[in-house]
Amino acid sequence: MRSFSKKDFPVSNIRRFLEPGPIVLVSSSWKGKSNIMTMGWHMVMEFQPSLVGCYIFDGNHSFGMIRNSRECVINIPTHDLVKQVIGVGNTSGADIDKFEQFGLTRIDAHKVTAPLIKECYANFECKVIDISLVSKYSLFVLEVVKAHVATSPKYPRTVHYRGDGVFMTSGRNVSFRSMFKPQNL
Amino acid sequence: MRSFSKKDFPVSNIRRFLEPGPIVLVSSSWKGKSNIMTMGWHMVMEFQPSLVGCYIFDGNHSFGMIRNSRECVINIPTHDLVKQVIGVGNTSGADIDKFEQFGLTRIDAHKVTAPLIKECYANFECKVIDISLVSKYSLFVLEVVKAHVATSPKYPRTVHYRGDGVFMTSGRNVSFRSMFKPQNL
Repeated sequence: MRSFSKKDFPVSNIRRFLEPGPIVLVSSSWKGKSNIMTMGWHMVMEFQPSLVGCYIFDGNHSFGMIRNSRECVINIPTHDLVKQVIGVGNTSGADIDKFEQFGLTRIDAHKVTAPLIKECYANFECKVIDISLVSKYSLFVLEVVKAHVATSPKYPRTVHYRGDGVFMTSGRNVSFRSMFKPQNL
Repeated sequence: MRSFSKKDFPVSNIRRFLEPGPIVLVSSSWKGKSNIMTMGWHMVMEFQPSLVGCYIFDGNHSFGMIRNSRECVINIPTHDLVKQVIGVGNTSGADIDKFEQFGLTRIDAHKVTAPLIKECYANFECKVIDISLVSKYSLFVLEVVKAHVATSPKYPRTVHYRGDGVFMTSGRNVSFRSMFKPQNL
């Protein structure tokens, strides 16, 4: 599988990768076990602190692990990992070790116990900071406390889920910077 | 500008268009005036009822209009409207009529007072159902109560914002349906 060289990235600018809406892999750890889930329902909520809202279905094995540990890692897979993305979504961490099953590699994070997924383009270490809407909407508010991003390419080719088994692959990146008011960039 | 023929679409399936993460235009109406804002921070939160979470900066002119009217419309623009998207984001409804300024056309909605934007690929009429996290995070929870979607193409070519003036345009749509467990589609 593809391998990326990564460097620290400013957590206040991770919107560059999350705002376009890719499917992500969320890794978690609890009581010595780690797991991965796929997630399509997430949104940026603030630059600084770097906040992300996300929906985690309470039927997922990861739900309890993330609620109990108050931590997770958002990993951004590229299009060549689409089969792993589907496999992770099709299976339960209650039954299998998804890292082993799908040939993904755990790497130690810096600020959380949950592991980074080596094969992904970017890894965002997150603390759960608000669970007040979890029982009603399964909505977790996360703070990204550390970000690791591939040094190249500048923008990853990501996959975006439409439901019904259909993925959209990200297309061209075009700058319209000159048309923006500076304060609105 | 491009024109779409639209039909009613099941509100429980609007994830097809929102989950991939496009920039959207949000229209609102209050005290006889209507307005438009651009929005990149949103997420699907439930199929049925059809819930969407979204961040609306309290400095936006639309913020008060939506909070007071408890309604809005999420409109999905295609890539050919990128200049309108930028223009709407660069300006304030306190100063100008954005429909007039950017050549966009109001159409009456069915279940809300806020207008649909005719030139967009899809229009989702929304009621604000939860403002409990508005003061802390500017997070609104919306319920989509009526959806209008273009009859063709099946999937729109949307624009996805990366910050810094850069847009990603949506690419190919590929079905991996046969690889999914039916209950996970």
